[in-house]
Amino acid sequence: MEEVVVGIDIGGTNTTIGIVSKAGRVLAKDGLRTKQFPEIADFITAATNIINQQITNIRHDIPNLTLKGIGVGAPNGNPYTGTIQNAPNLSWKGIVPLADLLHKSLKVPCKLTNDAKAAALGEQQFGAAKGMKDFLVITLGTGLGSGIVANGSLIYGFDGFAGELGHVIVVPNGRLCGCGRHGCLETYVSATGLVSTFKELNPKATDTHDARKIAEMAQEGDKTAIEAYRLTGEMLGFALANSVAYTSPEAIFLFGGLIRAGEILFKPTRESFEKQLLNNYKGHIHIHPSALHESDAAVLGAASIIWNG
Amino acid sequence: MEEVVVGIDIGGTNTTIGIVSKAGRVLAKDGLRTKQFPEIADFITAATNIINQQITNIRHDIPNLTLKGIGVGAPNGNPYTGTIQNAPNLSWKGIVPLADLLHKSLKVPCKLTNDAKAAALGEQQFGAAKGMKDFLVITLGTGLGSGIVANGSLIYGFDGFAGELGHVIVVPNGRLCGCGRHGCLETYVSATGLVSTFKELNPKATDTHDARKIAEMAQEGDKTAIEAYRLTGEMLGFALANSVAYTSPEAIFLFGGLIRAGEILFKPTRESFEKQLLNNYKGHIHIHPSALHESDAAVLGAASIIWNG
Repeated sequence: MEEVVVGIDIGGTNTTIGIVSKAGRVLAKDGLRTKQFPEIADFITAATNIINQQITNIRHDIPNLTLKGIGVGAPNGNPYTGTIQNAPNLSWKGIVPLADLLHKSLKVPCKLTNDAKAAALGEQQFGAAKGMKDFLVITLGTGLGSGIVANGSLIYGFDGFAGELGHVIVVPNGRLCGCGRHGCLETYVSATGLVSTFKELNPKATDTHDARKIAEMAQEGDKTAIEAYRLTGEMLGFALANSVAYTSPEAIFLFGGLIRAGEILFKPTRESFEKQLLNNYKGHIHIHPSALHESDAAVLGAASIIWNG
Repeated sequence: MEEVVVGIDIGGTNTTIGIVSKAGRVLAKDGLRTKQFPEIADFITAATNIINQQITNIRHDIPNLTLKGIGVGAPNGNPYTGTIQNAPNLSWKGIVPLADLLHKSLKVPCKLTNDAKAAALGEQQFGAAKGMKDFLVITLGTGLGSGIVANGSLIYGFDGFAGELGHVIVVPNGRLCGCGRHGCLETYVSATGLVSTFKELNPKATDTHDARKIAEMAQEGDKTAIEAYRLTGEMLGFALANSVAYTSPEAIFLFGGLIRAGEILFKPTRESFEKQLLNNYKGHIHIHPSALHESDAAVLGAASIIWNG
């Protein structure tokens, strides 16, 4: 008997569904347009069909395959209730009992958490944090997410919403955040933050200057784009130096679209981090890119919720 | 057989040694002038004599008493090595293997941690955090210390130095801190920080205006003293609102000399906290005073290291 797990990564635009082995091999992977399913019931039906088809296909090679469970990474996912709660980027409003619906449809255990926490579990199970008991994972996409592992366990907090580092205020009265407050870390350090910084540096910037474009410009040597990354890294390094004072991690992993810029982001981040770190911590906490392939990471992370549990 | 534990709280000026029952009764308590023992060997001898005398005395009432272990709260105490490391306020320089020395002298297990972490364990074992799995304890003395409990366990971090919230930078390029950096939380929120704030508000202030004096003035209605507390609480509330984004605690407990001012400190702290909190967290995280008696708390906290272990 070979056990496998389904990993589902739900995003505002796309959903990815994969089958993952215990060793972290992605045996199947398919996509779904989240926005095509304004009704949650239709989404569950479509996901169930994909999973059943994937299992049928894999059974050709692995006849003794059994499905151990389903792990879901979703925005505003609450691990304690298995629900998605008031996710601003999804068309399913209110409180959606997603874990329960998938469990009923597929008759296996289903657990859910938010996408950044899933990324942290994935890094611990299959990535560069293997064997580590204390580390941080920071996901840099449209916003900034985080997963904090301490004493070997992911921190969920009393209500399931620990690790909202994107909403630590780093600049009092700073940029307006989607949460309604001002100066949150993610208004500076994220794809959105990078674009804001670039526009502040170059008032002639247009809407074609999205994060991808700015990354290309930086890689081609554009000074304004490089400066926008430097300021982003400087703020990230500062925020990470403060974060270390909470849980004193062994290492910090960065993940997501923004890190494709490589050293253009990492160098100013590390310099700012090291410069602003309390003496106790200096010199031994490393900031690494995630070791997971970007295209598989979300599915591996979601699957780890089951493998780790 | 009734087991008891020794709790030792080492401060720069005084050391307190107590015998604690499993229910949290302090059966004996004695003091020692830390500064009278520039040689650590002499300190160990004096502490051993006190403990042996306390045990002998208690055995009159509880003949079947056994000593389960010794817990020590000490500045710069490293729980992983049982050593005190480069504590600026102690005359024992370098790395002092305190747990090992006490173990050799008294032949029972000895564990050590820093004073704020001991306070958090004490609150969990004997105080207002009984049964809680996610909470923070903030100690407000000369500096600002903290103990973070998540998933039911105290967070030590990779190197034993988690929970240095006093050294989170809250004002970039702000007040000079003893750690050599600028704008650390404890330069604003601590007895030292209160005095600095008072002096900024009242340039005629003299050295007689220490934290105790400012507390008295505030209680008597002095507007400048009350404003100094208000600014202290405002900064503390801001820092705690940010802290919640890390571990999402159920409650936050404040402990130490500064909280004797009561509502003069708590009111502005709670107002600032609630105002600056991310929506998710609003309305259900309470800030309480510690439930431990100030005079017993340090000894109870130190003893909890053994009772909790």
